[in-house]
Amino acid sequence: MNSIHPDQLLESLRWRYAVKSFDATRTVDSITWKAIEQAMVLAPSSYGLQPWKFIVVTSPKIKAQLPEISWNQTQPQDCSHMVVLAVRKSMDESYIDSYVQSIAETRSVPVEKLAPYRLMMMGTVQKMDPESVRSWNTRQVYIALGQLMTAAAVLGVDTCPMEGIDGKAYDRVLGLSNSDYSSVVGCAVGYRDASDKNAFAKKVRFPTDDLVEYL
Amino acid sequence: MNSIHPDQLLESLRWRYAVKSFDATRTVDSITWKAIEQAMVLAPSSYGLQPWKFIVVTSPKIKAQLPEISWNQTQPQDCSHMVVLAVRKSMDESYIDSYVQSIAETRSVPVEKLAPYRLMMMGTVQKMDPESVRSWNTRQVYIALGQLMTAAAVLGVDTCPMEGIDGKAYDRVLGLSNSDYSSVVGCAVGYRDASDKNAFAKKVRFPTDDLVEYL
Repeated sequence: MNSIHPDQLLESLRWRYAVKSFDATRTVDSITWKAIEQAMVLAPSSYGLQPWKFIVVTSPKIKAQLPEISWNQTQPQDCSHMVVLAVRKSMDESYIDSYVQSIAETRSVPVEKLAPYRLMMMGTVQKMDPESVRSWNTRQVYIALGQLMTAAAVLGVDTCPMEGIDGKAYDRVLGLSNSDYSSVVGCAVGYRDASDKNAFAKKVRFPTDDLVEYL
Repeated sequence: MNSIHPDQLLESLRWRYAVKSFDATRTVDSITWKAIEQAMVLAPSSYGLQPWKFIVVTSPKIKAQLPEISWNQTQPQDCSHMVVLAVRKSMDESYIDSYVQSIAETRSVPVEKLAPYRLMMMGTVQKMDPESVRSWNTRQVYIALGQLMTAAAVLGVDTCPMEGIDGKAYDRVLGLSNSDYSSVVGCAVGYRDASDKNAFAKKVRFPTDDLVEYL
């Protein structure tokens, strides 16, 4: 496997910041976008359950509706691809069965052989109340968010994570209101505008010695 | 900024899997490790608050105590660097002030100029009950987990995310019990063992068309 040099990774991660102003004239090309899309699809999740959906808005008409349900932030409109990461609100037997089916087909193993794994997942879920399941699923969505931003950075694509969105209003606009999924967090993807002064602000982090402890 | 080709990113993300058996004889070299460490330090978080600590265990004596508090999984012992991602349990005024101080120093701006930002953060936190703050902080930790795994993958380093750890027991072993932080999730970092058959299992994902919707 080809790997990159540690210095190149660090350069990308230091280059990344939460973009305030996107260049509305620039679009992520389709080859680069496909890799970012697959970075989300390939994101790790607990048991591999993928309790998420990724809604990608590129329609100018829909994008134009987003700032007013995002505390008037303009990133959802000006970016190239506005990603809304949605969580599966519950985790029921039929979903787990569809996942087990997916494993069986992908790996050409009989469903019966996966019974112990199925039982383990069911056991985990049945121990939790609905609110805990939703929180657990939501945490997985944040893994995908992390993978999305890191992947974009190494590809030289800018992002802005956006918790400041009105989830219920997003659900309405995106057609999720009566679905099993609900908007959790946004991530605007595209290219920084040359006028965005935040690009030049020094990155603020607590000292490594305060954040990382070695034992 | 140097960016990598989309195909190389995809190759890395497809190469990655949740390692079951690490090669206990292999260690991540210090240059590569430093980049992984900084990938955690540089992870994005809400408002940049970094509500986390990363405990890195390399001591064989401490590692040996981990499998029995990890459902007898051996990754924490056999990997090169066992990372435990811990969440800040609360978010109080003094923490926010220390963060504002850190911004002021890094960017050479007077603390007074940051008063509106401070007020915004305080407003967000004061609206939440303690449990919600902790959940919010925990979600941020999962961004760091995502960035950690993606960063390791592009560097050719293996990982295994581990939710199946006894958080309270980890807190005791790591000395976090009476601290402001609590163990949330582990991530074993190192190199897969040649005997790990999971490396050759086909990656299971729902079809992209089911996971990604375009609007």
